[in-house]
Amino acid sequence: MTQAKHILIQGGTIITPEGSFAGDIEISEETISAIGTSLPAREPCAIIHAENCLVLPGLIDSHTHIALDTGIYKTADDWEIGTRTAACGGITTVIDYATQFKGQSLAQAAKNRHDEIENKACIDYALHMMVTDPQEFKNLEALQQLGMPSVKLYTTYRPNYFADDAMILQLLRQSVEAGVLVTVHCENDALVTAATAQLVANGQTSWQYHAQARPALAEHEAVHRVLFLAEQANAPVYIVHCSSARSVELVQAACARGQLAMAETCPQYLLLDDGCYGGDQPERYILQPPLRSLGERQALWQLVAEGAVSTFGTDHCDYTLAQKTAVNDFTRTPGGLPGMETSLPLLYTYGVKVGLISQMQLVKLCSTNAARIFGLYPRKGNLAPGADADIVIYDPRGESFIQASELHAVSGYSPYEGWSVQGHVKATLSRGQIVYQDGRFYGRPGHGKFAPGKPFDPNRIIN
Amino acid sequence: MTQAKHILIQGGTIITPEGSFAGDIEISEETISAIGTSLPAREPCAIIHAENCLVLPGLIDSHTHIALDTGIYKTADDWEIGTRTAACGGITTVIDYATQFKGQSLAQAAKNRHDEIENKACIDYALHMMVTDPQEFKNLEALQQLGMPSVKLYTTYRPNYFADDAMILQLLRQSVEAGVLVTVHCENDALVTAATAQLVANGQTSWQYHAQARPALAEHEAVHRVLFLAEQANAPVYIVHCSSARSVELVQAACARGQLAMAETCPQYLLLDDGCYGGDQPERYILQPPLRSLGERQALWQLVAEGAVSTFGTDHCDYTLAQKTAVNDFTRTPGGLPGMETSLPLLYTYGVKVGLISQMQLVKLCSTNAARIFGLYPRKGNLAPGADADIVIYDPRGESFIQASELHAVSGYSPYEGWSVQGHVKATLSRGQIVYQDGRFYGRPGHGKFAPGKPFDPNRIIN
Amino acid sequence: MTQAKHILIQGGTIITPEGSFAGDIEISEETISAIGTSLPAREPCAIIHAENCLVLPGLIDSHTHIALDTGIYKTADDWEIGTRTAACGGITTVIDYATQFKGQSLAQAAKNRHDEIENKACIDYALHMMVTDPQEFKNLEALQQLGMPSVKLYTTYRPNYFADDAMILQLLRQSVEAGVLVTVHCENDALVTAATAQLVANGQTSWQYHAQARPALAEHEAVHRVLFLAEQANAPVYIVHCSSARSVELVQAACARGQLAMAETCPQYLLLDDGCYGGDQPERYILQPPLRSLGERQALWQLVAEGAVSTFGTDHCDYTLAQKTAVNDFTRTPGGLPGMETSLPLLYTYGVKVGLISQMQLVKLCSTNAARIFGLYPRKGNLAPGADADIVIYDPRGESFIQASELHAVSGYSPYEGWSVQGHVKATLSRGQIVYQDGRFYGRPGHGKFAPGKPFDPNRIIN
Amino acid sequence: MTQAKHILIQGGTIITPEGSFAGDIEISEETISAIGTSLPAREPCAIIHAENCLVLPGLIDSHTHIALDTGIYKTADDWEIGTRTAACGGITTVIDYATQFKGQSLAQAAKNRHDEIENKACIDYALHMMVTDPQEFKNLEALQQLGMPSVKLYTTYRPNYFADDAMILQLLRQSVEAGVLVTVHCENDALVTAATAQLVANGQTSWQYHAQARPALAEHEAVHRVLFLAEQANAPVYIVHCSSARSVELVQAACARGQLAMAETCPQYLLLDDGCYGGDQPERYILQPPLRSLGERQALWQLVAEGAVSTFGTDHCDYTLAQKTAVNDFTRTPGGLPGMETSLPLLYTYGVKVGLISQMQLVKLCSTNAARIFGLYPRKGNLAPGADADIVIYDPRGESFIQASELHAVSGYSPYEGWSVQGHVKATLSRGQIVYQDGRFYGRPGHGKFAPGKPFDPNRIIN
Repeated sequence: MTQAKHILIQGGTIITPEGSFAGDIEISEETISAIGTSLPAREPCAIIHAENCLVLPGLIDSHTHIALDTGIYKTADDWEIGTRTAACGGITTVIDYATQFKGQSLAQAAKNRHDEIENKACIDYALHMMVTDPQEFKNLEALQQLGMPSVKLYTTYRPNYFADDAMILQLLRQSVEAGVLVTVHCENDALVTAATAQLVANGQTSWQYHAQARPALAEHEAVHRVLFLAEQANAPVYIVHCSSARSVELVQAACARGQLAMAETCPQYLLLDDGCYGGDQPERYILQPPLRSLGERQALWQLVAEGAVSTFGTDHCDYTLAQKTAVNDFTRTPGGLPGMETSLPLLYTYGVKVGLISQMQLVKLCSTNAARIFGLYPRKGNLAPGADADIVIYDPRGESFIQASELHAVSGYSPYEGWSVQGHVKATLSRGQIVYQDGRFYGRPGHGKFAPGKPFDPNRIIN
Repeated sequence: MTQAKHILIQGGTIITPEGSFAGDIEISEETISAIGTSLPAREPCAIIHAENCLVLPGLIDSHTHIALDTGIYKTADDWEIGTRTAACGGITTVIDYATQFKGQSLAQAAKNRHDEIENKACIDYALHMMVTDPQEFKNLEALQQLGMPSVKLYTTYRPNYFADDAMILQLLRQSVEAGVLVTVHCENDALVTAATAQLVANGQTSWQYHAQARPALAEHEAVHRVLFLAEQANAPVYIVHCSSARSVELVQAACARGQLAMAETCPQYLLLDDGCYGGDQPERYILQPPLRSLGERQALWQLVAEGAVSTFGTDHCDYTLAQKTAVNDFTRTPGGLPGMETSLPLLYTYGVKVGLISQMQLVKLCSTNAARIFGLYPRKGNLAPGADADIVIYDPRGESFIQASELHAVSGYSPYEGWSVQGHVKATLSRGQIVYQDGRFYGRPGHGKFAPGKPFDPNRIIN
Repeated sequence: MTQAKHILIQGGTIITPEGSFAGDIEISEETISAIGTSLPAREPCAIIHAENCLVLPGLIDSHTHIALDTGIYKTADDWEIGTRTAACGGITTVIDYATQFKGQSLAQAAKNRHDEIENKACIDYALHMMVTDPQEFKNLEALQQLGMPSVKLYTTYRPNYFADDAMILQLLRQSVEAGVLVTVHCENDALVTAATAQLVANGQTSWQYHAQARPALAEHEAVHRVLFLAEQANAPVYIVHCSSARSVELVQAACARGQLAMAETCPQYLLLDDGCYGGDQPERYILQPPLRSLGERQALWQLVAEGAVSTFGTDHCDYTLAQKTAVNDFTRTPGGLPGMETSLPLLYTYGVKVGLISQMQLVKLCSTNAARIFGLYPRKGNLAPGADADIVIYDPRGESFIQASELHAVSGYSPYEGWSVQGHVKATLSRGQIVYQDGRFYGRPGHGKFAPGKPFDPNRIIN
Repeated sequence: MTQAKHILIQGGTIITPEGSFAGDIEISEETISAIGTSLPAREPCAIIHAENCLVLPGLIDSHTHIALDTGIYKTADDWEIGTRTAACGGITTVIDYATQFKGQSLAQAAKNRHDEIENKACIDYALHMMVTDPQEFKNLEALQQLGMPSVKLYTTYRPNYFADDAMILQLLRQSVEAGVLVTVHCENDALVTAATAQLVANGQTSWQYHAQARPALAEHEAVHRVLFLAEQANAPVYIVHCSSARSVELVQAACARGQLAMAETCPQYLLLDDGCYGGDQPERYILQPPLRSLGERQALWQLVAEGAVSTFGTDHCDYTLAQKTAVNDFTRTPGGLPGMETSLPLLYTYGVKVGLISQMQLVKLCSTNAARIFGLYPRKGNLAPGADADIVIYDPRGESFIQASELHAVSGYSPYEGWSVQGHVKATLSRGQIVYQDGRFYGRPGHGKFAPGKPFDPNRIIN
């Protein structure tokens, strides 16, 4: 799609974290140049009509796994597919992972991942560094030059990814000086291992038993412990994909005690529950942590509404239905769901439309907060003059039904197949380029660039 | 000053609660029409050059006492003088008080105050309702029509203003349904009365003893109690002019328990301490509550920095030096300090410049939060297209020294006489009108209008 | 009854705060001389057979109003009647009140009360000092010589007894140095006054409205406030007659924060509830604070079981049925119930027998804790060699029914008329004298002496 | 020593948890038959003169390691030596450990340990079960028949003793139904392992580095985590040998939240600090957990004084000086100190005498509380008729100096060599037998019997 020098998004309702108002947005080259009421069109100028539509900062997905290779399973997508899927869902920045393997330098780990992505990404990306080798912690400041101000640890997945408490504590301590935020996947390894072993011993390994292998308490214990270690280290900490209300409450309580702790959750933990494991297609809901009870799910929404959750990430994994259905054994089924393309319509429908969260909260949770936390602000997650023209236009009118066949992931299924949603993504702009509009993808591989994050700064969050 | 149809504020650094960026603001008639980078000038258009300057939403002073008549003392100003003083200090909305006396309807109380103000105000104003007669509580919903969604109570000042716990509880209970926010002046009456009586008995009534008559504990107890009553009533509550850190900590703890409680403080409690009572001019620091210790003052700044305080109000009272010095007896000296005109330079210098708070926090504390809490948002406290063009341009360059002789209040003194400040208010715009620029006042009586507040809504605060 | 030089109580189950065991108690003169298994009888020796019976330290009633004159109402008993009633209920020490009126010295107040009691008391007594005049606080140490280490304040009953917060705080502060424990009747005066006024205005003054005039919240607020003041003063505090669970929870929370706070409750708040006000004889349940809901009552039992309550006091007031029924107006009916004689059988039946509390807890709550708190330990409340031989023998066998006609108070009614109880007081010994045995009273006026309390000592409570 | 049918301990000051009084104790056969003032002597009767002495319930050491074989090290004592040492220190019951190894039944483990002890023990003993094999948890009720109502787990010492969180949680859950109390050695294994590895890597393995290998934080984390797991399991929990104040505070906070959690500490953590590692003989202070800072030590005393600690255990290990000094490498030096014989004089001198704790607290901490917690009450830890005549007579007069050469352990050293103590153990009676008196041991192997514990009962602790 040829692009004019200027773009004017006219007549929409502009939503920021602070409020909403009727207005126009003018884009010049890659950035926003004006926000106003009845802005004049400067020639040459393309007009996007946004009447009756919401105009939001492009979504930032704080947690994706595009082209993931766990060592055991590989997702079926690549970075072109992944970022196309994202763009069609209104996402303009994904924050994915580079993995630092044993003996590898942080710089090498970053370079390897960039090499996979460059020339393929259709929208911008940032990266968390998944660290596995304590030897490299002494070089944590190196992440500043790499533009990757966040690291990820796992409290489970022995032996490859598992970080013991000494490693977690060391990293938390070193993170403060290095301007790095530690993010943690919290599940108590011993509890998960024991519960799984018991099921295996009982011959209960079919998909329906998946949630029993990873009890909510395993998550709660790990969250409780990691918060304690963070308190000792006087370090901020970010808990990824909180699947249950109790985990978020623990984060909330830590904040009340004066800690800087943040909770991420995922749409699936708000929309789906462990009833799915009793259904016809339990394999579609194999993920870690698993879906929880209906009560947890509702309590989690309540905490989101109260502002106790900082970010929504999808934890998107594009495994195919063939991979999911290969063997009816949860211990041999890849964990993770596709979700980037359906996230915005679902959260709009089941969050905003029903009154659980406001439009402003939607913007914070899906975009601005992640930008602030991971150092992308004010370039990303921000509808203000000078910011990147990463914008999504959402038309809230009309009902449609989610159909995997219309989505751009290669999974071949959606966990939300057949769900009704209100409205749809009308257009997505990435740095001033229309990458998706009215059902058609216009992006091109290589347009997406690395968006380096600035060092972690608590003041960017408190203000 | 003749005004063009459009005004373009060019080249400043625009500060919002969310961040800052270089840009221009275009004003059309009374409202902001565009915010952008390098906005074109539409003819006819006046240009205000804001290079090197900060462009903020006009300040909202949440707590003023213009033309105050306590029954015992009267301030020397009127609404023309008061709003001129405000405008020269960068304030574009004052939230003052109407008093409902015994037997008087809320509507009558509002009308009486409006009558005093109309034709005199040079900037916009809103009003809290000071209630003294429980009989009128049953009509609290009437405040919605009156555009006054907040009431004020005193836990002290028997017999005229004092509200006992039954009255406070009743009002808190009724406020929830009525969409009204209860604000409270917290000092335990018995403790203040006993401490004062002791001083009087000792013959210690000269000004230097003022603070001893109103111990910090009297404030703490009242805050502790009012928060408890608010919790019982399941009502939000707003504590005015918190003078000590402990009071704010009590509010903070209530929030951690799930209450919606808000704390206001005043510049004087952050900048001055009880050392003033040992100085040459203690009469200039007679106010209720009194100044506290240096340690409290520093701890209070820390709480402000952490975000535990919602608003700054000046509690401005324009008593003359003659009134203050009439008799060296704190029991016979009017309480209250002038402060509207010096507030912004002082907070910028001693808050932002020294790194205690960010520019964004300054905007929240001085403007946006008050707008949200008292129902003026998004019309006020908001730099966004469609909002009232209430704007202050602050030039942060250069040092100057506060001199009462250059200020516009009639008090004839400033508690900050001779203090050094960084920068100065360059211009103030009230609904698109330049009311102050480069040292000169251009406002006119009658331009200022009542800005009705919408009913109190917790969601406007949480988002 | 002639008494031998020695008494041997044989074959009972001896209950102490620490445990229970089968054994004998030997008494020599006024004190316990031995506790053992199969103790030999020293001649001359009277034997009391206690087989199948419980042998407890004599009860200490921490809160009585014998021969009360409120200025408005007078109870119908005198000290002979009152202590006879107590003895028949297994009580061996009452802690009653001396009132210090305005302008009166503490010593004079004590003397006046002693004069009323001497030559009449059949069992020992101690006294709390009810203080009304702040002028006398400076002499608080005088209470040490007077053997009265506790004072009582009211947060209600204007104007005679009401203590404002300044007076409460002052007394708390001075109590620490003086070795005095402040005890407080907690009901918010404004809330009680307003609720009462509303009922009066509505013409709702018949007895059935009594509880509405004194809402539980009035108690909670006062407890919350008094605990705060005690914390500020760094003083221990004792809340008398907690009528609701929430009050005890507030005390419990204060302890968890490190305060030394104690809660007393009364049998009536555990056994009766506000259903009584809807019955045929609501006048019999007029007392302050009033009876609460069934739910509160059950929650209060739970807190007693957990150990959150320190003492049981009866708040015994021997008003006659004629006084109670004079006028069907709760504002003109004397408040207070008779209870000393029925307390032990009721608490045994509805506390111990049903498993809510253990026999050891019963001993602590009815005797030992009061002795420790009010400085009577180890002379009172203690079954150990050297202690006063104040002993009650309770036969837990058999069911009987409470009948006012068989009780020794002059009230002419019991709030528990017709209630079934398990067992009965078999014998009461006061300093080695049998004052009650097998249904017959053997005490004599003048036997009872003042039991001076030692200064308050936290270590006596913590150990 | 030939024993008369009766023994009369005359003229001492009898100390119970509730108080103290001058009196005599009569013993008949193995039990206490009377406590009184001026008890007559029944013929035949041996008199023990206890004038000027304290008469306490015999001490119960809640934590001993007599004849310990860790698999790596063996202590040099046997059960005859160990119980002789205990008796000479005023201890009348040791609670030691039986170890259930992998694949072994609980009954077999108990039998093995009984076999080692029988015919050797000079005083009574009880046993905790150290469990290592989760398979046996399903038989936890078996511990009731075995009279062993407590189990012990380690959060460290891989691979032999380490229990992972799944095992801890499972045991906690099963313990509730089984009437078993879980006791835990709390040190985070990963933190200890990492700190040790770092020291080893640095070549810092000499004794002086011992404390650095086991940071206090490792203990705190484990306590924090175990309390969380206990809360989830709704199970009581007992933390052994808390070496730092923070650990006890965590237990205290859990109690304030409503958990039933108990803390044990050891005399060495109250009397010694990590200054010892900088001294001449650091090998003498190798133990796990290690000694902490002076500040921690003082704070720990304060918590003991407040009642936050339930029990004192010595963690006695009788390694010889030869074993301790074999190699200057903390990783190859057996951990553990002798302490049973010096415990009472030290705690009396540095606890009671200096006013930190009362005599009553000493009795609770050294005897009664352990009896209650571990099901030995009221037979043990109790000076009451019918209880076992386990008694220690302590003469508080005179100063002496601890000399290892005079002690009965085979270690050949004392960590307190040369310390001044006030008073000495005058006599120890075990079930009516004098086993130690005036410097001479009269016990005989085989007198000591197993004292079976009753199932754990929270009510025995709360009362």
